[in-house]
Amino acid sequence: MNFPTKAMIKEVGPRDGLQNENRFIKTEDKIAWINQLSDSGLSYIEVSSFVNPKWIPALADALDVAKGITRREGVTYAALVPNQKGLERALEAKIDEVSVFMSASETHNQKNINKSIEETLPILKDVVTDGIKAGKTTRGYISTVFGCPYENVVDVEQVVRVSEQLFEIGIDELSLGDTIGVANPSQVQDVLDVLLKRFPADKLAMHFHDTRGTAMANIVASLDMGITTFDSSIGGLGGCPYAPGASGNLATDDLVYMLDGMGITTGVDLEKLMSAARFIEGKMGKSLPSHHLQVAAEKGCS
Amino acid sequence: MNFPTKAMIKEVGPRDGLQNENRFIKTEDKIAWINQLSDSGLSYIEVSSFVNPKWIPALADALDVAKGITRREGVTYAALVPNQKGLERALEAKIDEVSVFMSASETHNQKNINKSIEETLPILKDVVTDGIKAGKTTRGYISTVFGCPYENVVDVEQVVRVSEQLFEIGIDELSLGDTIGVANPSQVQDVLDVLLKRFPADKLAMHFHDTRGTAMANIVASLDMGITTFDSSIGGLGGCPYAPGASGNLATDDLVYMLDGMGITTGVDLEKLMSAARFIEGKMGKSLPSHHLQVAAEKGCS
Repeated sequence: MNFPTKAMIKEVGPRDGLQNENRFIKTEDKIAWINQLSDSGLSYIEVSSFVNPKWIPALADALDVAKGITRREGVTYAALVPNQKGLERALEAKIDEVSVFMSASETHNQKNINKSIEETLPILKDVVTDGIKAGKTTRGYISTVFGCPYENVVDVEQVVRVSEQLFEIGIDELSLGDTIGVANPSQVQDVLDVLLKRFPADKLAMHFHDTRGTAMANIVASLDMGITTFDSSIGGLGGCPYAPGASGNLATDDLVYMLDGMGITTGVDLEKLMSAARFIEGKMGKSLPSHHLQVAAEKGCS
Repeated sequence: MNFPTKAMIKEVGPRDGLQNENRFIKTEDKIAWINQLSDSGLSYIEVSSFVNPKWIPALADALDVAKGITRREGVTYAALVPNQKGLERALEAKIDEVSVFMSASETHNQKNINKSIEETLPILKDVVTDGIKAGKTTRGYISTVFGCPYENVVDVEQVVRVSEQLFEIGIDELSLGDTIGVANPSQVQDVLDVLLKRFPADKLAMHFHDTRGTAMANIVASLDMGITTFDSSIGGLGGCPYAPGASGNLATDDLVYMLDGMGITTGVDLEKLMSAARFIEGKMGKSLPSHHLQVAAEKGCS
């Protein structure tokens, strides 16, 4: 296998992590935490979501968080933006990057945002267009790329169609999500084989969930296919609301450990990252699933 | 990457799993559990260890377990054997395969079995020689192939030397262990690159620990290098005694899920395996770390 020498980690803990947790973390704690993340060497942090707070109460303080954090030079601060109303607040918050989202699966799109794929695209188009006008960079998320909780198998050609449409409306980068954590490395290879015929590797990012333990293996397959941008969540924050203790998001700390060992530069300082992980673990009041948070500090396990 | 179409899973839960746990599982429960494992499609189960019970009280009932289980045709029942005394009992128990063990790291070998590598080899030689005479197949385990809790870095040439010596004394297969779970896929590639120049892939097995979350990624690197035999522990049984909740062994259920998805045949029925996993989880009285034991039965996580 051939591996790149650099990778970009996009930290989604403050959004994808917290959005799937039941506890509301106080605004001042979110701010302190994100500031620690900013100091850890990460160059991209998704700080919140401007989805209507009634849907995601955990992130109801998006505006205050975005305004309260210390902006570190060289770090891109992004946020999820579902529509024009969310965009207004994102622009007021001076977010650097606007991220829109939809599903590859028609059923999941409907269940998740109450619209068909066809109804969703014009809305996202307006957000991206206005975001670009306001000088922002933009990102598109596609959920259920590798499988759907409702439709089960998702046709890769459907993923291609939605990807093409998102690039057409002007996004800078596309994040491909294994929303329910079902993907395996062969499937990742096959899907990327198709997508990389149409889109350049440097415009794609992978967003793996570790629900069935395959995320790190899928990362390896992606690296070998030339992908260098990966979304992850500090400490593995953001489990499955239906299964307490279940893994959801891939843990940034575990990912950084592996990339470091492989000689793939990320710019992230694992020690500082672990401080930030322990901080949020304390605020959550429960153990987070990342392996590094569980490894005995002094001794390895024999 | 190129993947094989078949893989062999060697189930070490009853030995490597239980040996690292604090609770003594009653003999009748061990027997019932191993019988379930025998019915799940596994074709190799390491049922216990004939190390002196004072060192591993969790496996003090090795003889009774080995005698009590129902032997299923087509399944190899193996056990760890440290010396002649252990071999006597292993032969009395009619074990099919005798497994000897040592470390690549001099310090770890000393700490683990109180002998130098040089002192260890003649002892293992006698065990393997007599095991072969008794019509048994034999296996060698090398610990700390990818890193040592005492020496930290382990020179791959040292691994080569110990491997050569073990093959010289007559073992049929060599299991390479990432004892403290530090390996990464590039390192796995590099180490196998060296070893596969000297030993055929079908005589090597990988024994990864998931302490830092890299086991499944390391499996992928190994598959791509032509390795098809992997050790794992049902439910991820066998954590780190120093860090409660920490992962240790790679979970057989998670591994089978990934291999199934990749179209790599193992012969294992994941549903039956999950039954056996839930059974031992119940007896352990605590949650086991495998992802599949935690995944919500009905819904995926979104």
